Amino acid sequence: MQSAIKELENKAKAAKAASRKLAHLPTEVKNKALVTIAESLITREGEILDANRLDCGDAKASSMDDAMLDRLVLDSSRLQSMADDVRTVASLPDPVGEAFDAKVLPNGLRIEKRRVPLGVIGVIFESRPNVTVDISSLCLKSGNAVILRGGKEALRSNSALAMVIKEAAQAGGVPGDAIQFIESPERELVSRMLKMNENIDLIIPRGGEQLVALVTENAAMPVLASGVGICHTYVDRTADLEKAVAIAFNAKVQRPTVCNALDCLLVHSEIAERYLPMIATEWAKARVEMHCDERALKILSNFKAFPATDSDWGKEFLALIAAVKVVDSVDEAMEHIARYNSGHSEAIITENYSTAHRFLEEVDAACVYVNASTRFTDGGQFGLGAEVGISTQKFHARGPMGLKELTTYKWVIMGNGQVRP
Amino acid sequence: MQSAIKELENKAKAAKAASRKLAHLPTEVKNKALVTIAESLITREGEILDANRLDCGDAKASSMDDAMLDRLVLDSSRLQSMADDVRTVASLPDPVGEAFDAKVLPNGLRIEKRRVPLGVIGVIFESRPNVTVDISSLCLKSGNAVILRGGKEALRSNSALAMVIKEAAQAGGVPGDAIQFIESPERELVSRMLKMNENIDLIIPRGGEQLVALVTENAAMPVLASGVGICHTYVDRTADLEKAVAIAFNAKVQRPTVCNALDCLLVHSEIAERYLPMIATEWAKARVEMHCDERALKILSNFKAFPATDSDWGKEFLALIAAVKVVDSVDEAMEHIARYNSGHSEAIITENYSTAHRFLEEVDAACVYVNASTRFTDGGQFGLGAEVGISTQKFHARGPMGLKELTTYKWVIMGNGQVRP
Repeated sequence: MQSAIKELENKAKAAKAASRKLAHLPTEVKNKALVTIAESLITREGEILDANRLDCGDAKASSMDDAMLDRLVLDSSRLQSMADDVRTVASLPDPVGEAFDAKVLPNGLRIEKRRVPLGVIGVIFESRPNVTVDISSLCLKSGNAVILRGGKEALRSNSALAMVIKEAAQAGGVPGDAIQFIESPERELVSRMLKMNENIDLIIPRGGEQLVALVTENAAMPVLASGVGICHTYVDRTADLEKAVAIAFNAKVQRPTVCNALDCLLVHSEIAERYLPMIATEWAKARVEMHCDERALKILSNFKAFPATDSDWGKEFLALIAAVKVVDSVDEAMEHIARYNSGHSEAIITENYSTAHRFLEEVDAACVYVNASTRFTDGGQFGLGAEVGISTQKFHARGPMGLKELTTYKWVIMGNGQVRP
Repeated sequence: MQSAIKELENKAKAAKAASRKLAHLPTEVKNKALVTIAESLITREGEILDANRLDCGDAKASSMDDAMLDRLVLDSSRLQSMADDVRTVASLPDPVGEAFDAKVLPNGLRIEKRRVPLGVIGVIFESRPNVTVDISSLCLKSGNAVILRGGKEALRSNSALAMVIKEAAQAGGVPGDAIQFIESPERELVSRMLKMNENIDLIIPRGGEQLVALVTENAAMPVLASGVGICHTYVDRTADLEKAVAIAFNAKVQRPTVCNALDCLLVHSEIAERYLPMIATEWAKARVEMHCDERALKILSNFKAFPATDSDWGKEFLALIAAVKVVDSVDEAMEHIARYNSGHSEAIITENYSTAHRFLEEVDAACVYVNASTRFTDGGQFGLGAEVGISTQKFHARGPMGLKELTTYKWVIMGNGQVRP
């Protein structure tokens, strides 16, 4: 154990030293390294899949459930898709070096902010081995060194991927120490890693709520965490009901297991009798289970619908289930949202200009929508290219986080002898 | 004690509720409230100075030292200066509502980021009562509610100021609950406040290192802290020596007790024999004490200079003392800076274009300078108007923090029925 801690400390120090070089690498060198990584994922398929087979064998022996096993297993087509993602990152604009907020002071001092990498990013993640590739390429492109700590179940797969990435990056001109992988399975290492704020500038937890909570509560450095998404869609009195059906259907059904899917449908009482049967008809075809308040339940007496319990409000279902509630005004809808939302994505369906405007202004969430599906909350959809996650915190970054959110800035001041009077 | 905690909880809840209204107040209402506050500080001078006299009386009785007492005492001219500062904040542009990063996606969705307040800001500060006024006006202007917790020594002064501010803000159209003041002197309240992340979105500690460390280590919400400034100025081989004397003199002498003052002078060996006596002559006039490495000491044998000890490197002197070291290259200077700097302000004096460029690129600090005094690191000097502090962290904000740094953003998405394919 002592030697594993010592090794981790050494890796963190090496990453810090490498980060200083990485911060000033030209974009073309970083892109060449990324392309070399993409190529190596294909040419070194054999050793990656061999390692993965060992992990999968152990997983089956320990009777891992099918969903988890599916996330663990790699094959040629998954490697190809990882390689494609790395090429996409190579094609994105480099955020490092961008100058902004430039000005010239009356005394002639030229001041600007320049975008720079954060330094060393620690990533603690659970079983999916593609995270090793995703995060390494995002960190490399944004000029950050990375320390990867994956789950025990995928140790050999992650280790093989990390080795391929490290060697390819090095061949492409990036310092090999910029990519560090923690092999030891000791749990204690995570607690130690969370206290290494001297050499790790940011921690990203990628995994379930428990992991995120552990990291958020114990990290000595800043944390960039994706949060829970409890998403509401409010169908206003003046909504175009056809649009409202299409949007609520898409938001609930298109991919129900993700954070930006609809959890709660709020419907204005004046249109509830017309609208609720329309959406219920569509949802029934997709086997969406409705948990309704008293008024909605009454309107939907001809449909299969369940009475909502208190725990249905403010719940992230991650399944084909929706809470449904009738409200008497946009104010009541916004009060409900203020009470139960998790700061992720909230939508209104309305044709009224002032109501739309109020909703956008007053609802406090990372993403607020008029007349569109909350399913769009996604780095790729928003045009950020790759995505680190979706922040529900307000500090540093909010909503989808891309390459820019892995950077900070420095103030650059150019003078010709100015002193302060 | 229980009742004080209950009261604090209620105040935090009330502040949160008020923050929802404050977030959408028009700029003109906020400005009117600020002007009313400025006026009230003058018209209600009597009650403020009465309260301050009681604090000062107790402070003298408990033999508070003169420097602290000077920070505590208020008079007409100090109130006038506070009122002027509030008017300055009123005159600054309102950061709230600014739209940026706007784009239209191929599917017609219009996306933009909109700047919004953080919500409720908790401020824990030590004896200077002007912080009550400064921070309240910055929070109000940036649309944030504020909970103020001042030091025991200034309890009556702060309480009187907070009352004046609250009533004036209310008269100007701002919800009174947007400004909360904690009266109870119980220390335990601070620990409780640091855990109220449900209702407090950000904590700002204003005070000494101990207070900042206590808050940083224990707060459950994000912290916006000003850090220590260990500032280096490096005089390069190609420096204009006249400029280098003027700048190093200004950086050390103009106000030695603040974080952006020079702590360590690094001088290239090729010009050290000419330059060191020049700056030593000027510094001697201002009684600057020099702590020199061996080579500098030898060159300055005709001056009063002391040998540096290990603890002189990486030390924030906050006094008329400077560490002095001779180096053989810009690389050695940058290595020294990388090892000892606190991420605040670093300067190079050089006429060489490439050396200047490298220094700006490679030195990792909030502010990097060419040919100017580090004393410019300041919100007012940088044109931000008022200043919350100077961040040496990399997350959220770096360097001088103004109104914008008290905000976050939300993504606003305007559609006409878009669903995700």
